[in-house]
Amino acid sequence: MQRARGVRAWRHESRVVLLGALVLASTLGWAVRNGRAQTKTERVVRIAEIEVDPQQIEAYRAALREGIAAAVRTEPGVLSLYAVSVKDHPEQVRVIEVYASSAAYQAHLQTPHFKRCKATTQGMVRSLRLIETDPILLGLK
Amino acid sequence: MQRARGVRAWRHESRVVLLGALVLASTLGWAVRNGRAQTKTERVVRIAEIEVDPQQIEAYRAALREGIAAAVRTEPGVLSLYAVSVKDHPEQVRVIEVYASSAAYQAHLQTPHFKRCKATTQGMVRSLRLIETDPILLGLK
Repeated sequence: MQRARGVRAWRHESRVVLLGALVLASTLGWAVRNGRAQTKTERVVRIAEIEVDPQQIEAYRAALREGIAAAVRTEPGVLSLYAVSVKDHPEQVRVIEVYASSAAYQAHLQTPHFKRCKATTQGMVRSLRLIETDPILLGLK
Repeated sequence: MQRARGVRAWRHESRVVLLGALVLASTLGWAVRNGRAQTKTERVVRIAEIEVDPQQIEAYRAALREGIAAAVRTEPGVLSLYAVSVKDHPEQVRVIEVYASSAAYQAHLQTPHFKRCKATTQGMVRSLRLIETDPILLGLK
């Protein structure tokens, strides 16, 4: 009788320990997933859709190239800046911008090369649409 | 007299050599610029604008993540695949794809992971617009 009670108590304790372990594992799993999600969403990805004055395409491209090269070379928080034009429409430019964080993006806006690029191209841009995004996955070699 | 003629001949020869050097330098410069331009434009950059069925966003994102991770991990010619959604519009997905060459892009279309991703997401996509581009500058850290 004493022994049967002991076995029952032991079984009960085992269940409590098992339940505790499951709750802990689940909480840890959530924390890890949440941590990862935060790390991922910290990156800032923006797509700029720009329409350039057709008379000034070459000057615009030169200024853009200069600005991008300087940003990637000198700013640790600028992860990538891809500038492309829609095929057969050199006046339709798209820039895909990836910054390490919001702070890195804000710092970028204060750099001399960004301000110079902005000032140079101001009169060349017909329209500019900025698309803010939420990263799903940034796969990079 | 003899000496004066010699000096003139020397000056003439110098001019010919100088002209030759200029032509050579100019040709080499052109070749270098052209070579660089070819290397740059060999890259294939495409932007996919996808509208996903709002009821199937999570399943779509999971399949897309799996396809991108496999492509970047296993294909040398897949330089980057960025998947994002427009902020506050998770159903509006954009994928920015960078391949080393047209051959790398064609090879990507034949991989099991691409075919699987395509088949899985087929019933989840409401519309798909593929934008072919000409790279201006792909700035990458």
